Amino acid sequence: MIVTCVHVRVKPEHVQDFIRASSRNHESSIHEPGNLRFDILQSSTDSTRFLLYEAYESEEAAAAHKNTEHYRVWRETVADWMAAPREGVPYNVVRPLERDLW
Amino acid sequence: MIVTCVHVRVKPEHVQDFIRASSRNHESSIHEPGNLRFDILQSSTDSTRFLLYEAYESEEAAAAHKNTEHYRVWRETVADWMAAPREGVPYNVVRPLERDLW
Repeated sequence: MIVTCVHVRVKPEHVQDFIRASSRNHESSIHEPGNLRFDILQSSTDSTRFLLYEAYESEEAAAAHKNTEHYRVWRETVADWMAAPREGVPYNVVRPLERDLW
Repeated sequence: MIVTCVHVRVKPEHVQDFIRASSRNHESSIHEPGNLRFDILQSSTDSTRFLLYEAYESEEAAAAHKNTEHYRVWRETVADWMAAPREGVPYNVVRPLERDLW
């Protein structure tokens, strides 16, 4: 099981647009085979900063996400709203190790 | 619902010790009332870097974690293994909004 933390900075005037588009992406992503979580978090101290917590059961399942229609739509929709390039940080899972706790 | 992402850098010679002590903390933390998740992740590119993904249903529940015996034991156990001070980054939850999806 792996997690990618995607750090996002959004232009202030597009924060609500970003939340709307990303929530749609969340709804589709959590139904992908191999998806474990797709949490969207907003910084408590800077409303323009977001974290996408994308957990998949394998590298292959995570890679398949990028070939979905909902991902492509999201990527194109949010492109002009980014204040900086997104940064994805990859992690291996230490705990929990049980598949059903994800 | 809130999440704190705690970024940790561990001295290389104590990586396995840190995993062991933090896994014990995980096992107790997930049974706290108000805890939603307590994931432990290890960077895929630097085995000395960890992320603790601590989700709670409220600020009060997150604060109560720091008063538990298992947290105090963990904090003291790992103190000398840190390569740098830990950094906690607070977030509000955008998705999922359903309590039972946490």
